[in-house]
Amino acid sequence: MKIEGRNNVIEALNSDSVTVNTLMVEKGKNSNIIALARSKGCKVSFVDRSVLDKESVNGHHQGYIADIVEFEYCEIEDILARSEQPFIVILDGINDPHNFGSVIRVAECAGVDGIIVGRNRQVAVTDTVLRTSAGAAAHMPIARVTNINNAIETLKAHNVWVYALDMDGEEITTTNLTGAVAIVVGSEGDGVGKLTRKLCDGIVSLKLKGKVNSLNASVACGIALYEVVRQRG
Amino acid sequence: MKIEGRNNVIEALNSDSVTVNTLMVEKGKNSNIIALARSKGCKVSFVDRSVLDKESVNGHHQGYIADIVEFEYCEIEDILARSEQPFIVILDGINDPHNFGSVIRVAECAGVDGIIVGRNRQVAVTDTVLRTSAGAAAHMPIARVTNINNAIETLKAHNVWVYALDMDGEEITTTNLTGAVAIVVGSEGDGVGKLTRKLCDGIVSLKLKGKVNSLNASVACGIALYEVVRQRG
Repeated sequence: MKIEGRNNVIEALNSDSVTVNTLMVEKGKNSNIIALARSKGCKVSFVDRSVLDKESVNGHHQGYIADIVEFEYCEIEDILARSEQPFIVILDGINDPHNFGSVIRVAECAGVDGIIVGRNRQVAVTDTVLRTSAGAAAHMPIARVTNINNAIETLKAHNVWVYALDMDGEEITTTNLTGAVAIVVGSEGDGVGKLTRKLCDGIVSLKLKGKVNSLNASVACGIALYEVVRQRG
Repeated sequence: MKIEGRNNVIEALNSDSVTVNTLMVEKGKNSNIIALARSKGCKVSFVDRSVLDKESVNGHHQGYIADIVEFEYCEIEDILARSEQPFIVILDGINDPHNFGSVIRVAECAGVDGIIVGRNRQVAVTDTVLRTSAGAAAHMPIARVTNINNAIETLKAHNVWVYALDMDGEEITTTNLTGAVAIVVGSEGDGVGKLTRKLCDGIVSLKLKGKVNSLNASVACGIALYEVVRQRG
């Protein structure tokens, strides 16, 4: 869907429920909208006025047309309501859209009830995410929250056991993951945040038997999710 | 490393031990070398003669300079010699360099002794593969064979149990994978080839609990490898 005009575009960029995928700006324009768009991880392309005139639906683009992704996020409560023993993934700062899409894809296969993502240091559901998910995003409830740690508190209040997938934890295969469970996956660079780690009921780790021992976030997530699947039988 | 001149480039393109990553061709040249290079999955870029003159080391480029990847493949025997109970991955037609790199990365973490790849429908160890492996390729013996099926026969003769990771097989978590074992991973589109499936000692599958149920080849491979790690304890 397209959003046109200065104020509408600013509103979309600042909105929590809408994700701006790309922004077309008339060549020569130089406003803080461009910096705002870039800070939100949205692609900015500079085009001739004639291109905007052609793309415009209502004729009031004022030099700005944004292309937004129409992905409807859900609430944590929607995810909790899906199962008596919910199986949840929490993403703590996955910035690479391919990794996010790949997590959605494997989570769908593993029968995950929903994914919770933060707004900070976390890519939104963009076109690349949708494409990389290979169609799985259409079947996966995703809740976007302001604060991951509050979300973890909410889950714990609903008797969900929350585990961070990170280094130096308990071996995942010997941790009991058969009940209501949420797995927190951190960014490739930094892992799970310190405060978030502390909030969790435990840390689970994969055995690393190599020299480099660098796991891709979505591959590590897939391995952990399938360990839950195995234990649940 | 750079290879220069018509005949040297043709030889490199047809070689089994060398992988040509990119080929620079002088603008206006139109020979069957270009088609040969493309058929080998190598990038071809057309540049001015002056660029080739600058890049050339010996001055005899004749309009062709190839950039080759210096990756040293090993033999199947080298992989078998690494462990009394070898743990091996066989790739049957992984064409996406990112997937190949990602498989190498997770295999290294899982303590795999080596990877066997074919020459057909299978990307070689290119720069993209090396980069995506995040350094793991430097520690992973990779054997490149003309025929995957012959390689499987060799492994079986060495008492390695060979399992295809594919649809409609036995649940992987209830299959005994504790001994010497090789896991065959097929392409995302076609899975493991029919004849190869037949040759294997068994087919192992991951539980699929979603609607889309589309797993990325390297994620599926990672899950299977870590099931072997779990069973081996």
